[in-house]
Amino acid sequence: MSNKRDLIPPRTLKGFRDFPPALAMPREELIDKARAVFRSYGFAPIDTPALEYSEILTGKGGDESDKQMYRFADHGGRDVALRFDLTVPFARFAAQHIGQLGTPFKRYHIGPVWRGENTQHGRYREFYQCDFDTIGTDANAADIETVLVIHDLLAALGFERFAIHVNNRLILNGLLESLGLAEASAAILRALDKLQKIGAEKVAAEMTETASASREQAENILATVQTAGANAEILDQIERSCGDNDRAAEGIANLRQLVDAFEGAGFPEDRLVIDLSIARGLDYYTGTVYETLLGDLPAIGSVCSGGRYDDLAGLYTKQHLPGVGASLGLDRLMAAMEELGLLQDAATSADIFIVQFSAEALPSYIALARRLRQAGLRTELYPEAKGMGRQLKYADRKGFPIALIGGPDELEKGVWQVKDMRDGSSADVKDDEVVSYLQARL
Amino acid sequence: MSNKRDLIPPRTLKGFRDFPPALAMPREELIDKARAVFRSYGFAPIDTPALEYSEILTGKGGDESDKQMYRFADHGGRDVALRFDLTVPFARFAAQHIGQLGTPFKRYHIGPVWRGENTQHGRYREFYQCDFDTIGTDANAADIETVLVIHDLLAALGFERFAIHVNNRLILNGLLESLGLAEASAAILRALDKLQKIGAEKVAAEMTETASASREQAENILATVQTAGANAEILDQIERSCGDNDRAAEGIANLRQLVDAFEGAGFPEDRLVIDLSIARGLDYYTGTVYETLLGDLPAIGSVCSGGRYDDLAGLYTKQHLPGVGASLGLDRLMAAMEELGLLQDAATSADIFIVQFSAEALPSYIALARRLRQAGLRTELYPEAKGMGRQLKYADRKGFPIALIGGPDELEKGVWQVKDMRDGSSADVKDDEVVSYLQARL
Repeated sequence: MSNKRDLIPPRTLKGFRDFPPALAMPREELIDKARAVFRSYGFAPIDTPALEYSEILTGKGGDESDKQMYRFADHGGRDVALRFDLTVPFARFAAQHIGQLGTPFKRYHIGPVWRGENTQHGRYREFYQCDFDTIGTDANAADIETVLVIHDLLAALGFERFAIHVNNRLILNGLLESLGLAEASAAILRALDKLQKIGAEKVAAEMTETASASREQAENILATVQTAGANAEILDQIERSCGDNDRAAEGIANLRQLVDAFEGAGFPEDRLVIDLSIARGLDYYTGTVYETLLGDLPAIGSVCSGGRYDDLAGLYTKQHLPGVGASLGLDRLMAAMEELGLLQDAATSADIFIVQFSAEALPSYIALARRLRQAGLRTELYPEAKGMGRQLKYADRKGFPIALIGGPDELEKGVWQVKDMRDGSSADVKDDEVVSYLQARL
Repeated sequence: MSNKRDLIPPRTLKGFRDFPPALAMPREELIDKARAVFRSYGFAPIDTPALEYSEILTGKGGDESDKQMYRFADHGGRDVALRFDLTVPFARFAAQHIGQLGTPFKRYHIGPVWRGENTQHGRYREFYQCDFDTIGTDANAADIETVLVIHDLLAALGFERFAIHVNNRLILNGLLESLGLAEASAAILRALDKLQKIGAEKVAAEMTETASASREQAENILATVQTAGANAEILDQIERSCGDNDRAAEGIANLRQLVDAFEGAGFPEDRLVIDLSIARGLDYYTGTVYETLLGDLPAIGSVCSGGRYDDLAGLYTKQHLPGVGASLGLDRLMAAMEELGLLQDAATSADIFIVQFSAEALPSYIALARRLRQAGLRTELYPEAKGMGRQLKYADRKGFPIALIGGPDELEKGVWQVKDMRDGSSADVKDDEVVSYLQARL
């Protein structure tokens, strides 16, 4: 061309990524499965805007998430920002709509959030969150249901070996109260959070240094959170050690009810672990807390975490909204499922590939494709009558299990050549039997 | 409280909206149905970032969409913006990945886009787009498939009366060429686009004024685009009037093949309308163009539109990428479906509501809920043992069709009281028959 034009280099921003079909399809599949589980418990979807007033999102303000917010002035000069999680928008949403929606209110929310954070450690600046919550009730039944939902989510995704670790913050709070350390609980929780990383000895040292606990108190706390055994045994033991504190007793009773319901309903017992060492870093949680570890990949950390909180939306409304919920770590799960071979790896969404052997026979191919689709068979027809080798190579690369070929001979005889791309076999199948043949074959 | 604290007023930005369950559920349903259709043709999903370099999105620059872009400097000082459609990101995506993905490439993309435009006329600043395209092929088979996909989309959403209007730009281009008006085609198209609004007389006047067409030429053009009759008749008539121009002849042949395939495969003939008056405002389209009107609500305009283009990604790559595709107007369709009663109006995602008659029986309710879910029945259990009236009111307001009640009497007898919320009837059903009873009842 005489008008030489500079091309704009095609690229995405650092920390952002495209989802080609090979990534987008498994993500859709994962989200579909999660949604089906949420819906099976009566959780309903909501959505909120990507952009909100910065004032809404910063809330109390001053923490790490503020610095990471994509914040700017819009066309009207408003101070706006992209949401950095789904919890703050949910709190704003609840404050605004709960009067009309009524309580209890059970919602799930799956969508992208944005954080301009450091992209080391494979973190993305745009990623999906997948949250579910029950708000407007203090009832332990909602805490129990949360664990059942977590169980069904992991099972629906195909995991067999996983453990939902459950604790109740009331127990540790009660223990600290009975030890006269209620004031120091934040410092003690901070120390305890490092138990896995630095070990009991260093945690005890930190407690005596930063939380003014005595050596004996620190050891008492550590012994409690490290209580091991079957779930019922742990609860019995804790009951003996701090069950005379009302707060701790309430936490123990709630956990006991949870364990009984889980086992009583026939959920596999080994998938529920009472684990007094988990606290979840957030100050936010006040009762039951959850973490979920994969038996085959414990090192990737918790894939579904959450807990009970006293008040969701206190920044925006005077209405007291207690609740309980958890968040499914989609990206982490995708990586785990890929590693464990739980993801389909085809690049096509269809099952059947129809070769366009000749352009003249296009109407026959289109009519066949329609019949197959009407029978629920997803069918792609190649758009051009190119060489058959090229078309089959395309089908193979995309991962189609089955290709159909109808050349002049086949059309003359009223058959279709069914080629199984998985084993290379092929068979001629009569036109009026092809639907049932393919249904059986897939 | 002594520490009086100011609440942050909970509100969304102008032009943005929340989706409570009553809006989010139908949208999920609509998207699910669209995805199933796309997949049934072998279209695979992709996703691209919400944020891109502004340079990528402005592309040629200078047009209306630029002014509407949410554009700002990110943490690293990069000039970034929120995508305002899914076409530009797809062009960038294709330029970047098509070498690896290969052609033909069929994708769908469903996601939010942002435009800081005027919010009059009920327009939102955040809305979903739903696009599908086949790129990397000139073959008319892809144009034909596009019309079949549009058909199946509308049918899957529950519409019975709709018409897909199809034209091919080559016909008008050929006619203008044969009239010596090729140079004036932009002005003529602009005039023609107003045909519905201002009528033939004023369009003819505009053509003679702005496109230097003679009165006779203007009338010739208007007569051609207004050719009426059955599809085959229209094509025959056009063939007689301008079939000796190569360009027009190609357009006619492509439309004829499309009509034959559509009818030959058994699609309802009255849902396809050859309509030479549609041009689609965009300069972008070069061949087949599509618009879809609802028989019951023609006034809302086209609910699915698109066409063939010569080159998708010329701004970002030298690789020639012709394609064809269309966009489903989700918001417009949601409004139409609501008006025509095609949307479910429940605020719950579940079918069965279990009353928590007494807290002691919670394990029985949980075990029952699990059995129902395992049988595919979506089941919500009320979290608190509040008064039954209150619980049933909740169930009724949410739109549950069926409630189950198990008080001491029922549990003693080994039955559940099944209350049909739709007709108020109720029946005692034995515990071991309740699953099949409910499956039959729903």
